Amino acid sequence: MTAQTRTDRPAPIPESYGDILDKKGFTHIATIGPNGVPQSTPVWYGWDGTYLKFSTTKTRQKYKNLLRNPKVSASITDPDAPYRYLEIRGVAEMEDDQDSTFIDEMSRKYIGKDYPWSRPGDERVIVKIRPKHATGQG
Amino acid sequence: MTAQTRTDRPAPIPESYGDILDKKGFTHIATIGPNGVPQSTPVWYGWDGTYLKFSTTKTRQKYKNLLRNPKVSASITDPDAPYRYLEIRGVAEMEDDQDSTFIDEMSRKYIGKDYPWSRPGDERVIVKIRPKHATGQG
Repeated sequence: MTAQTRTDRPAPIPESYGDILDKKGFTHIATIGPNGVPQSTPVWYGWDGTYLKFSTTKTRQKYKNLLRNPKVSASITDPDAPYRYLEIRGVAEMEDDQDSTFIDEMSRKYIGKDYPWSRPGDERVIVKIRPKHATGQG
Repeated sequence: MTAQTRTDRPAPIPESYGDILDKKGFTHIATIGPNGVPQSTPVWYGWDGTYLKFSTTKTRQKYKNLLRNPKVSASITDPDAPYRYLEIRGVAEMEDDQDSTFIDEMSRKYIGKDYPWSRPGDERVIVKIRPKHATGQG
């Protein structure tokens, strides 16, 4: 296995791993909980050339953790090559997902239609991670 | 989607998600780095009924992070159902992997033979997580 790491900005994604960002995999998002214990769960993701983005709601632990401590890591396994992965670390920025525009965009990427599982009162948030560190492996 | 959470000990794994522990998936291990930023990477895992276990070496960032701060989260997607996952949080205990017994056991589980990628000087460690919190979803 070979490893590539870059810490320079603004585009530290190792070139040979950038393809993973366009795939329909899952990223496991690690945040830090109120007791200092990491939390990690898989989510859909999107990449816009600057930010790794994912959707969450204001009731989720992930959102509450990031409000308190925006330090975050995203670990993405290549869905076509399970021993190949990309890890991105950075500081999360969050903004409201007006009219569910972003969750619908993610849903169309993954399941080909607008997001069908919204519940009344869901307050959707876009979480944006600008990579400060990225490592590819495998 | 339904969620099940239990925080009681000593066996907090939600019954309906326990099967994931016996599968050949990957667990994304989240630790906390020296600068307080989470680190997360995928690894093989095993479950012995009490501990979730994985192998690492003493040169890996994950090992150094856990020596400093043993709080850890393991996020495991069901390899047969990508929207189904189990998250386990706890405190890591580590011990030397004498004679590579454990990495060979993991390797036989995943690729059917003893671990073929050892390098001279590798100091293998067994990381053991006793679940203090576990959540299944999907």
